[in-house]
Amino acid sequence: MTGFAVPEKTAAQSAAELLTWVRRESPLVHCITNDVVVNFTANVLLALGASPAMVDIPEESGGFASVAGGLLINLGTPHAERRAAMEVAARAAADHGTPWVLDPVAIGALPVRTALAHQLRDLGPSIVRGNASEILALAGAGNGGRGVDAVSSVDAASVVAVETARKTGGVVAISGPVDLITDGTRTVRVANGHELLTRVTGGGCALGAVMAAFAAVEQDRLAATTAAVLVYTIAAEQAAAKAQGPGSFAVELIDALYSITGDDVERRARVR
Amino acid sequence: MTGFAVPEKTAAQSAAELLTWVRRESPLVHCITNDVVVNFTANVLLALGASPAMVDIPEESGGFASVAGGLLINLGTPHAERRAAMEVAARAAADHGTPWVLDPVAIGALPVRTALAHQLRDLGPSIVRGNASEILALAGAGNGGRGVDAVSSVDAASVVAVETARKTGGVVAISGPVDLITDGTRTVRVANGHELLTRVTGGGCALGAVMAAFAAVEQDRLAATTAAVLVYTIAAEQAAAKAQGPGSFAVELIDALYSITGDDVERRARVR
Amino acid sequence: MTGFAVPEKTAAQSAAELLTWVRRESPLVHCITNDVVVNFTANVLLALGASPAMVDIPEESGGFASVAGGLLINLGTPHAERRAAMEVAARAAADHGTPWVLDPVAIGALPVRTALAHQLRDLGPSIVRGNASEILALAGAGNGGRGVDAVSSVDAASVVAVETARKTGGVVAISGPVDLITDGTRTVRVANGHELLTRVTGGGCALGAVMAAFAAVEQDRLAATTAAVLVYTIAAEQAAAKAQGPGSFAVELIDALYSITGDDVERRARVR
Repeated sequence: MTGFAVPEKTAAQSAAELLTWVRRESPLVHCITNDVVVNFTANVLLALGASPAMVDIPEESGGFASVAGGLLINLGTPHAERRAAMEVAARAAADHGTPWVLDPVAIGALPVRTALAHQLRDLGPSIVRGNASEILALAGAGNGGRGVDAVSSVDAASVVAVETARKTGGVVAISGPVDLITDGTRTVRVANGHELLTRVTGGGCALGAVMAAFAAVEQDRLAATTAAVLVYTIAAEQAAAKAQGPGSFAVELIDALYSITGDDVERRARVR
Repeated sequence: MTGFAVPEKTAAQSAAELLTWVRRESPLVHCITNDVVVNFTANVLLALGASPAMVDIPEESGGFASVAGGLLINLGTPHAERRAAMEVAARAAADHGTPWVLDPVAIGALPVRTALAHQLRDLGPSIVRGNASEILALAGAGNGGRGVDAVSSVDAASVVAVETARKTGGVVAISGPVDLITDGTRTVRVANGHELLTRVTGGGCALGAVMAAFAAVEQDRLAATTAAVLVYTIAAEQAAAKAQGPGSFAVELIDALYSITGDDVERRARVR
Repeated sequence: MTGFAVPEKTAAQSAAELLTWVRRESPLVHCITNDVVVNFTANVLLALGASPAMVDIPEESGGFASVAGGLLINLGTPHAERRAAMEVAARAAADHGTPWVLDPVAIGALPVRTALAHQLRDLGPSIVRGNASEILALAGAGNGGRGVDAVSSVDAASVVAVETARKTGGVVAISGPVDLITDGTRTVRVANGHELLTRVTGGGCALGAVMAAFAAVEQDRLAATTAAVLVYTIAAEQAAAKAQGPGSFAVELIDALYSITGDDVERRARVR
């Protein structure tokens, strides 16, 4: 599991290989996420072959984060007890080397989660995932989106993403029509995906959990994040081809994540 | 956007027009709703073209309610922190002119939510939505249903609905085989819908969110509420025609809300 | 409604009969369950013909548990307020003779829920449902699974299940490739089901709610639990035959629970 830093291996080949590893290892993915998407997120992970566990009280989240394969902290619906669980889990993950993903949902305009996001950012998340508005707000630039929408473009945020990656020492991924993934040195753009992903709640949030699953089986964070984006957005394309609308799309996406092959990924990947 | 108070425009024509407005404006709909239906509610709004945001902590809900296009307060699973968020949000909505919907889920027998419903009612919700039992209990008559079931008939509650609408200065909508919508002066009955709506959790709750979306683009609350009921219940009929049971019905309903046209609404509306 | 203790009635015949009763009586099933599966659980109960009500605050859960037909307490996402609601509800159920199901999700490694599970166990749940790891951990043997996975075999746990049933005075059901159900004296094994049930979050949790629904219409706890397992796992087989993956499986399962007949149950039951 070297990842595509090795010249002769493409990002798509690496993603195909890591997909096999996720299914073989079935990594335990600890999720502290919002009430809206928690069911969809668990089903996405199960379909992919990972083992989700939603442990979101502070008395349990620290111990669990230290043994999990990966951790997702998603800031939507940040109830007080869940916020405490996030802090405990992030510290435990940092202490025990558990790779962890921070998804700063709708920060900027909303005060509690914005402050918490800045605090968590300083603990050095392995991966930060958000839309352009959120990545700008996490860096203290811009003031976030309207709710969970993306109003800033990925390109405008790419400079900030590189800076943030250098500060956190991890990867920053910006979701958009073309996804941007950077570790501060290397930058990858993935042009796969489908507009229907923005019409299903959790379309983005669940991707954060998939990143945690891939990070559990691959130490090169850029390779892991890119693989997660490729597998997820290509599955979304397969789902969209069969869907009549966002309802059937969500169902087909789960099915596609269950059946997608490494060949599908290699054949359809659009990496720049 | 005048609504069907204008004599020459029918309720169905108004609904078709407002559907276009919801899709064009994509209003930000702030939802404080219960854990059971929050995912389905967000997906209903996204399918329709609105922008849902579930902001349910008191430190964030006031500021958000003052900038949102519409607000839904649904009393299911009323955890303490969420109850505080509801009060703050309702006051902010009232102060800033944000239209807001109160859905007094299962009040009557259950003490905490019943007291809270009465308190929120006195803040003057723009729209109250419930089944007959809940509308009776909100008025202090009857003692609510068994859980979230409707045991009182819509007709028995219609007099109380008119009285409640006069007191709140808003609209009251009673869900049932025939929906009744009144602003205390004008009363509309909509005979669209399907029995499968009662076999999917959130079938009624999500309608409250749709009402908030329509109220965000139409100041005539009766027109907005009627449009929401028509679009939602006609989409339900379209979904039921394709469904094999409540599982596929829920999926088809999301798809139908995505694809329903103004023509569909005008052709199928059964308004009395 | 005697159940299959009567020699001439098989477990499958009893299950078919009880299915009719659940649909006729539409028992009110009070659920205190986790955020991940609460929507799916409600939809499973509605599809089956029962009336779910998710009442999970301590001020409301006691009164509700005393009037409900059955109660489910599921320990996933055990937030402090919900834990308090569980204790109040379990005591009320015990006091008022409401049959109640305890599902000790992921206990063993996770401290808060493990302590709570032991406390609730001592209140004498009518039915305990879990995988082998959880049943072992509930008895104080083993130390639970990794998250919500089952790592101990059903057979290894069967002796412990019999002991636990004798201590609680209720039924213990272990989910696995072959489900084991015992009341400490009689033991039934059900070989129905499908692997896809483990690929949908709530696949097991929702079964606990179904057990509460059947227990609401049948005093013989072993017959009620066996009927719940048979109806649910046979519906899962019907769903799997139509599904393309876990996404469509979950949808088909809801549809199957809506349309499954007593004949289906009698024809397909594999009881040992």
